[in-house]
Amino acid sequence: MGEFELIEQFFKPNRPPAPASQAPAAPESIVLGIGDDCALLQPAPGMQLAVSSDMLVEGRHFFADADPAALGHKALAVNLSDLAAMGAEPLACTLALALPPERARDEAWLAAFAGGLRALADAHACPLVGGDTTAGPLNLCITVLGQVPAGQALRRGGARPGDELWVSGTLGDARLALLALRGDIALPPPALAAARQRLERPTPRLPLGRGLRGIASSCIDLSDGLAGDVGHLLAASGVGAVIDADAAANLIAVIAFLSGAGGTFDLNFRRSTVLTGGDDYELAFTAPPGARAAVERAGEKAATPVTRIGRIEAAPGLRLIDAAGRPVEDGFRSFDHFA
Amino acid sequence: MGEFELIEQFFKPNRPPAPASQAPAAPESIVLGIGDDCALLQPAPGMQLAVSSDMLVEGRHFFADADPAALGHKALAVNLSDLAAMGAEPLACTLALALPPERARDEAWLAAFAGGLRALADAHACPLVGGDTTAGPLNLCITVLGQVPAGQALRRGGARPGDELWVSGTLGDARLALLALRGDIALPPPALAAARQRLERPTPRLPLGRGLRGIASSCIDLSDGLAGDVGHLLAASGVGAVIDADAAANLIAVIAFLSGAGGTFDLNFRRSTVLTGGDDYELAFTAPPGARAAVERAGEKAATPVTRIGRIEAAPGLRLIDAAGRPVEDGFRSFDHFA
Repeated sequence: MGEFELIEQFFKPNRPPAPASQAPAAPESIVLGIGDDCALLQPAPGMQLAVSSDMLVEGRHFFADADPAALGHKALAVNLSDLAAMGAEPLACTLALALPPERARDEAWLAAFAGGLRALADAHACPLVGGDTTAGPLNLCITVLGQVPAGQALRRGGARPGDELWVSGTLGDARLALLALRGDIALPPPALAAARQRLERPTPRLPLGRGLRGIASSCIDLSDGLAGDVGHLLAASGVGAVIDADAAANLIAVIAFLSGAGGTFDLNFRRSTVLTGGDDYELAFTAPPGARAAVERAGEKAATPVTRIGRIEAAPGLRLIDAAGRPVEDGFRSFDHFA
Repeated sequence: MGEFELIEQFFKPNRPPAPASQAPAAPESIVLGIGDDCALLQPAPGMQLAVSSDMLVEGRHFFADADPAALGHKALAVNLSDLAAMGAEPLACTLALALPPERARDEAWLAAFAGGLRALADAHACPLVGGDTTAGPLNLCITVLGQVPAGQALRRGGARPGDELWVSGTLGDARLALLALRGDIALPPPALAAARQRLERPTPRLPLGRGLRGIASSCIDLSDGLAGDVGHLLAASGVGAVIDADAAANLIAVIAFLSGAGGTFDLNFRRSTVLTGGDDYELAFTAPPGARAAVERAGEKAATPVTRIGRIEAAPGLRLIDAAGRPVEDGFRSFDHFA
């Protein structure tokens, strides 16, 4: 199969994307999709455009034998998570794909990958409008485009001393799944299944991000680990924070399976998993204490749990405390691709 | 160096891009650049957004020892060429970059690559606003965003029987340089230098593309070879064309060096080079015969040569004739990454 047939067969939508109930981006925003030199989009009047690109590399971001449907899901999900963190709604995405020759011939793999990507794209009204295919070591690069009312985007730099620090959903499970799949730890089958779902099919928090417009003072998505990503938010805002490391460690979804399991899963391991694990694709955000009820309502409306885990302070840096308020030794670092 | 330091040091602009005289995109269209979950752009009112992604892989699109500044130029140029083909003006670009560890440590390489990219980005007011860096086999994925007045984009599907087929600039030289660098042919040093410039530093035809709005009935950029790319235009338009293969073959910039050189450079070789060579990043476009003077004025205004090489016919398919109007055997195929 040639590259043009490959695009035609697997990636060109054969029908307009179904509008998802929670995704207000109108299909009429797509003026021209796959098949020309560029796609053409018409953002709604008064909107700013949000854009983000992420690249996933075989052997680094995913295993060579990863489920292709899950991979298609995840490649788009990590990008949609960036739109969520800005409070933006999706408009469209592009996919650039380098495929080794054996993958380019593997129609079952391509169909499953494209299907996983399309299912998530349809669910969030974020159609694939263009891209590129080439031969090369397996590499997936997705760019998402979204829109947000001018001036309402959630940025990293708006946290102020006195604000409270929140996170969405659960944390650390993706890391546990990775450790278990690598054979570094053992997890009971139901725990592994649940954790693996979080690793392979993260949920971009788009409804929550939109709901936090006008409420959150700053926001970031958690891709490299809580400590490092919150560190970026603090640096951008010129502030510091104290985080209750034990409240954070309790956000592991499969924690019930870990508590009684002895040494490997001690408190420090759980803290480290949540603070440095990465691949969570949850939102960390700040809001003034007076907005607490509004934050909780936004979480309920988006059907996404939200948890307060700390507060912003004027002194730069990230300080960790335990459940009793005592300082926790901070040796936790974020993931760095070149470290 | 970590990935965040790498972005900070090499890719984050330390100054706003200089507005280029021929590029009307205003710097105020960039609301937020590198450093948040997404960049934020504000397209001008009444504009549609044009978006395109291209991926370059080491060993396939460029040699491992390619001049990094030229590589930075080319990675962006091939994307800007897609904007040119739509008649769009650049707004911004993102770069996703997979780097082997030894490249990530090679500050001279990184600085030269980023410098080459930035020089072209500045020349066309297309600042880098975001992206991603990761470890992996060397892979460059750029997404460009541009804008075009609603309804004025040049598309592939507008060619009509009776229209004339034009191309910009020169063709085939990039292919000659590739063959010479591979050792398949020998070129005199001045010819190789000129051809290599076309291979390594293609010129995106943005001023011409903008100038053809309202004049050209269809347009495509030439990346995979004249025959194949014009074939895409014809298919999208539901028409066919006859091309003067010898007029096309005469568009080789270094043709003066080839004419006396005997067998390797015979007429059929020159035809094949232009029809299937690829990597030209010129525009092929159609316009009614009555627009001939307007096309020529657009070319002059953009300081870009334009040449008529054929005409559109109702019967599907691409037919080649020689300078005397006789049919030329058509065994020329376009480049396909998976063929």
